[in-house]
Amino acid sequence: MSELIIWTYDWVPEGPRGSVRDLRLRWACEEAGLAYSVRTVPFDGRETNHLARQPFGQVPFLDDGGLKIFESGAGLLHLARKSGRLMPRDPAGEAETVQWVIAALNSIEMVTVPWWFLRISGEKDNGLAGWMASRLDQLEKVLGERDWLAAGRFTAADLLMADALRVSDVRSSGDRPATDAYVARVTDRPSFKKARADQLAHFAAADDKRSAAG
Amino acid sequence: MSELIIWTYDWVPEGPRGSVRDLRLRWACEEAGLAYSVRTVPFDGRETNHLARQPFGQVPFLDDGGLKIFESGAGLLHLARKSGRLMPRDPAGEAETVQWVIAALNSIEMVTVPWWFLRISGEKDNGLAGWMASRLDQLEKVLGERDWLAAGRFTAADLLMADALRVSDVRSSGDRPATDAYVARVTDRPSFKKARADQLAHFAAADDKRSAAG
Repeated sequence: MSELIIWTYDWVPEGPRGSVRDLRLRWACEEAGLAYSVRTVPFDGRETNHLARQPFGQVPFLDDGGLKIFESGAGLLHLARKSGRLMPRDPAGEAETVQWVIAALNSIEMVTVPWWFLRISGEKDNGLAGWMASRLDQLEKVLGERDWLAAGRFTAADLLMADALRVSDVRSSGDRPATDAYVARVTDRPSFKKARADQLAHFAAADDKRSAAG
Repeated sequence: MSELIIWTYDWVPEGPRGSVRDLRLRWACEEAGLAYSVRTVPFDGRETNHLARQPFGQVPFLDDGGLKIFESGAGLLHLARKSGRLMPRDPAGEAETVQWVIAALNSIEMVTVPWWFLRISGEKDNGLAGWMASRLDQLEKVLGERDWLAAGRFTAADLLMADALRVSDVRSSGDRPATDAYVARVTDRPSFKKARADQLAHFAAADDKRSAAG
């Protein structure tokens, strides 16, 4: 039987816990009812110690019975192709889901992540704020008209978009009630809660090992 | 017979000509030998006049026999699924191509596009420079070891990555000979040259119409 493995770090500091992107793949597996295990690469030396498996030194990466995939967006699309629960099987539903997955990665995160990066680097008001506000306002219009991005029901696109939007700094940058309701709706799913709790437990257990070793 | 239509603007100023993202879809169709036509939405009023078809007011979007897809990355994945010339048909080759398409969108462009946006906004040295340099250095290592990103031959991933990297400001931000050679190799393809020439001719023809109308 082919084994599905999600690779993440063995440990991370408090800050990113609950946001490390292995959560996207855990969540997708939970939604799809796919059995998976989690394995780790060292956080210390991450810039160079697993470049052969992830050329940017990031996590997660996926191993599906020997098929290796990095980039959480690519892993998510791979899992979505395995389960109709993440992506409809008709061409229109599939195309709509993929376009919104890409929109989350290349129209929303392409602005929100660098904005947030500059913000935590000390540039609280940075030159990306106006661009981000305009993108988020356009998305607010979409989310004011429907509950889910694609195909009239929860898909992988909502998983990714809500994960991008739940970053609290991004959300607090403006008053967008439809977006807030959307994020609340998507992250209220038991699969999200389980994936997040499992990630937090994973890193908390690593703390205990570090203390024991110290 | 189903018709493949690439939608772009009717006109753009000199600056973005040769870089508007309809080029990615034109190029993909040329590589795949897919017949297509080009139609337009007005550039003036783009922020609001076609939100029903592209919620961020951008171009391109694709119509494939009634199947409508926005986000150039999603359009590219759709075209790649139509032709083995853009993406191998075996699971490993397909997974590798998709992961590098996503890497171009969410690990490279997520840094290079905002960096460039800040730069043309007047922040020549901006807070994203270090992050961008580190990503491009990691990619340089990959490109120093092979000619193509995925599956040992040209794929949709090279089309997208080279299009992201050919931005002259990005390229001139550091000395990366393997990346330079890669961009030269990919953009030397007749399909790229034709797509670019066609886009330039499209906007030049629009200049003539504007002059005639004025």
